[in-house]
Amino acid sequence: MSHLTIALDIMGGDHGPHITLPATVNALHIYPDIQFILCGDKQVIENYFSRYDIHADNYRIEHCDQAVEMDDKPSKVLRAKRNSSMYRMLELVRDKKANGCVSAGNTGALMAMSYMVLKTLPGIDRPALISSLPTAQHKKVFLLDLGANVSCDAETLFQFAVMGSVLAAEETDNPNPRVALLNVGSEQIKGNETVRYASKLLSDVPSLNYIGFVEGNDIFNDVTDVVVTDGFVGNIALKSVEGLGKLVVNELKRVSEKNLMTRIMAKIALPLFKKIYNRVNPDQYNGASLIGLRGTVVKSHGNAKSDAFFYAIKEALQEVNRQVPKKIQEKMETVLMERP
Amino acid sequence: MSHLTIALDIMGGDHGPHITLPATVNALHIYPDIQFILCGDKQVIENYFSRYDIHADNYRIEHCDQAVEMDDKPSKVLRAKRNSSMYRMLELVRDKKANGCVSAGNTGALMAMSYMVLKTLPGIDRPALISSLPTAQHKKVFLLDLGANVSCDAETLFQFAVMGSVLAAEETDNPNPRVALLNVGSEQIKGNETVRYASKLLSDVPSLNYIGFVEGNDIFNDVTDVVVTDGFVGNIALKSVEGLGKLVVNELKRVSEKNLMTRIMAKIALPLFKKIYNRVNPDQYNGASLIGLRGTVVKSHGNAKSDAFFYAIKEALQEVNRQVPKKIQEKMETVLMERP
Repeated sequence: MSHLTIALDIMGGDHGPHITLPATVNALHIYPDIQFILCGDKQVIENYFSRYDIHADNYRIEHCDQAVEMDDKPSKVLRAKRNSSMYRMLELVRDKKANGCVSAGNTGALMAMSYMVLKTLPGIDRPALISSLPTAQHKKVFLLDLGANVSCDAETLFQFAVMGSVLAAEETDNPNPRVALLNVGSEQIKGNETVRYASKLLSDVPSLNYIGFVEGNDIFNDVTDVVVTDGFVGNIALKSVEGLGKLVVNELKRVSEKNLMTRIMAKIALPLFKKIYNRVNPDQYNGASLIGLRGTVVKSHGNAKSDAFFYAIKEALQEVNRQVPKKIQEKMETVLMERP
Repeated sequence: MSHLTIALDIMGGDHGPHITLPATVNALHIYPDIQFILCGDKQVIENYFSRYDIHADNYRIEHCDQAVEMDDKPSKVLRAKRNSSMYRMLELVRDKKANGCVSAGNTGALMAMSYMVLKTLPGIDRPALISSLPTAQHKKVFLLDLGANVSCDAETLFQFAVMGSVLAAEETDNPNPRVALLNVGSEQIKGNETVRYASKLLSDVPSLNYIGFVEGNDIFNDVTDVVVTDGFVGNIALKSVEGLGKLVVNELKRVSEKNLMTRIMAKIALPLFKKIYNRVNPDQYNGASLIGLRGTVVKSHGNAKSDAFFYAIKEALQEVNRQVPKKIQEKMETVLMERP
């Protein structure tokens, strides 16, 4: 029997408790062996639980009288929001009272607070935001950094490659995932000095399955399992793809109203389109993780539905069970020994 | 009556004359008032013309005994391929014997040669590769740089904004196109120093309709007409989008073979899917232009079909007719006067 504890930021996200509480109730019932610590406004949580007649004994409430707002600046929350549900959740992980935590709140604030409260693992300079995307062959490709660090040197990209490799190995049961650097061409001479030097660093380490450079279209091509880039490029690549995904769906809606023939065609194909949209729409890729920290932190989409917050909880449990932070630390130690 | 002359690189591209010659013949007939200079192997061109019994008097052949290969390194071609069809084509523009030119050849070589042979316009440090993408509202959004410059300082991004604004104005008959910088968030504090400083430079210039930062998903959102970024980010954004476009189509093929129901659904919807694919597949966005040079250079896809090479010729004609290089120079002069 497991004695895992997960801390939840009940107040975070565009819709706060309206989204997080239904997901939490779902998690309480589906994971009766897991302890949950609900960080947030005690009154709001108790009201909800009594109103819906919810009985579960695998939780406790940690009252917090502050909440991080979606437009709070990261620099400000570090000083001014130490009594927030987000901060408390991270303190619980830091103090070993929780094994991992989940928030749908302000990404910038979560990154800054996680970095400050939990600290990075030995050998890791910066945490990274990572998520998986679908590939043509219905596999997963892991992309990092999605925006935690707008600029990265070669050493940081090297560390991201190690981190991404560990998460991919654990989540896809592939002991030797292929790792690539995102670049503007696959030849060694392409790109800027940073990616070229990162490539050299990665080539020198036998225990990483580094395959070289890949281009943007290769993200979906099943040529690699992990794609490493800095947070500026990763964020823009992910959001560009999201933009096109939405365009495809909107286009379908538009043509479906054009004339009877296209209307019928579109109606018939709608389930296929939805299926594809659900694969390509990044709103569905919940459970983006902040990795490289001394603890498990999972970020759910701010505008997520309660399903999504539940999946983020599931993702956190998986990372805790797989001991991802410990394995990143071990892998870092291995690769550092291998470096010339 | 027009006396325009367009130089064509007959030997460039994955398929060379097999693709460029049929497109050229098409152009010779459709534009009888335009002179074409066909740079390439005289024997190959004459054989083709005699074999297909082609008669036109609005062309001449400029024999070149070299061709730039798709895997030639840019640094090498500058020295070793001065008798190539690509180099000759650019010399014709430089020497005012042609008003513009079109190549489907090696992008890196074309960028390096164009920069060396034609030089940039006064006030412009680097040429940029620009293309338009479709938006949700069926308009065009112009994205630059798509890979001509892997790193750019704020001043270069500023110049790209001016260049993109001019091309968008000319191609969409919109005298005041909105211009935005691509970033990881829309707030002023987001991003790296380079984009923040570029944003400040752009804000100071009243004659540019600068609207601030946009994110990756905004490319398709009709919130801006021009999206400016460096060649590293632009190339990866474009190719990531291309990757997803292909995934959508492959997914359709896959589900369409699954069972009778989905097979019927997919078959019926195929025209819609193709329509969407044709809008999202960057292979279709031919006529990517190299702008900022003292002359018009249009790059057709290397693996383009002959239709695509024809459209690239059409694009070159349009830019020549609209005097895009001259207008970029004038706009540069205007904005430099406005700068504090």
